[in-house]
Amino acid sequence: MIRETIVTTLNADGTVHIAPMGVKRFGEEYEIAPFKPSTTLENLKRDNIAVINFTDDVRIFAGCLTGRYDWPVVPAVKIEGSRLQAALSHVEIEVEGCTDDKLRPRFRCREVYRETHAPFTGLNRARAAVLEAAILVSRIHMIPAEKIDSEIAYLQIAVDKTAGEEELEAWNWLMEKVRIFRAQKVKSEDTA
Amino acid sequence: MIRETIVTTLNADGTVHIAPMGVKRFGEEYEIAPFKPSTTLENLKRDNIAVINFTDDVRIFAGCLTGRYDWPVVPAVKIEGSRLQAALSHVEIEVEGCTDDKLRPRFRCREVYRETHAPFTGLNRARAAVLEAAILVSRIHMIPAEKIDSEIAYLQIAVDKTAGEEELEAWNWLMEKVRIFRAQKVKSEDTA
Repeated sequence: MIRETIVTTLNADGTVHIAPMGVKRFGEEYEIAPFKPSTTLENLKRDNIAVINFTDDVRIFAGCLTGRYDWPVVPAVKIEGSRLQAALSHVEIEVEGCTDDKLRPRFRCREVYRETHAPFTGLNRARAAVLEAAILVSRIHMIPAEKIDSEIAYLQIAVDKTAGEEELEAWNWLMEKVRIFRAQKVKSEDTA
Repeated sequence: MIRETIVTTLNADGTVHIAPMGVKRFGEEYEIAPFKPSTTLENLKRDNIAVINFTDDVRIFAGCLTGRYDWPVVPAVKIEGSRLQAALSHVEIEVEGCTDDKLRPRFRCREVYRETHAPFTGLNRARAAVLEAAILVSRIHMIPAEKIDSEIAYLQIAVDKTAGEEELEAWNWLMEKVRIFRAQKVKSEDTA
């Protein structure tokens, strides 16, 4: 089972790096597999520590895909680093080993600390739709426009029926990104 | 924003009734709008109390739609009744008022107790897909077969990529229900 999380690591200059990431769990161990090249990969290789943040605030997922990285963080407890303030729960991990790979090296990680911060308040279909749209937007260069349009039309139904203000805000960030991508594509084709 | 929850109420004979239900929250108040006719509606009218269970275990949603109602419960704290053992958090409510409606009377409810039981451990795309499939299956009589098939094909992708054993189990219950519905439909058409 793959959990969609936000992984926070430390950059070389001590600032916090925030990245959405699918994470696998095996008992007390977690596997993080960042893409090559990526900042999370460099930070994990250098420091061997990270925080896995479990949040259902999909603005953070949509935000990271649309240039909005400024989400409040607070210090981690057992490791250097920070967790998201919006995390419903978080796990602090240390890297135990790494299996290299052409695309996505896999880091085997040990849980060193876990804390719950706020109650889960229910599944929401619009949040799931925003997450799907975020994944779609992250692959916009590789997917035909018609496929993007038909999936967005499908996801829009759950957004219209069940979203609150935060989900609508996240959805609109992603739709704006699709519009900008297409406008730029038309422009580059015009000048080609 | 509509939260997809499991509402537990007491039947007249004291047994527990478990039903998936979309719930709205307004500050400290919740709105529950069960369909006419339904057991949850009768129980709310008689007792004026209920538990809203927040869980991301989608087997319970899929189970309630496929005849699997036997989910462990434990006693509520401030009201008569029970909560789901699998609830990550739950809220106990008392009805403050009801607005009647032809389809779905709306119960305005006051939170009298809230408790967190287990940490949220991340969004999962397969769980969201199972929830969407459950909603689809609940409307199978009203939706054209081709639409059901194309939506299931889309949702299957997230299931294949991100499901664990529990999500696969829930997904298979729903797919079995679709097969049984169609087999019965063919049979009733044959004998018509």
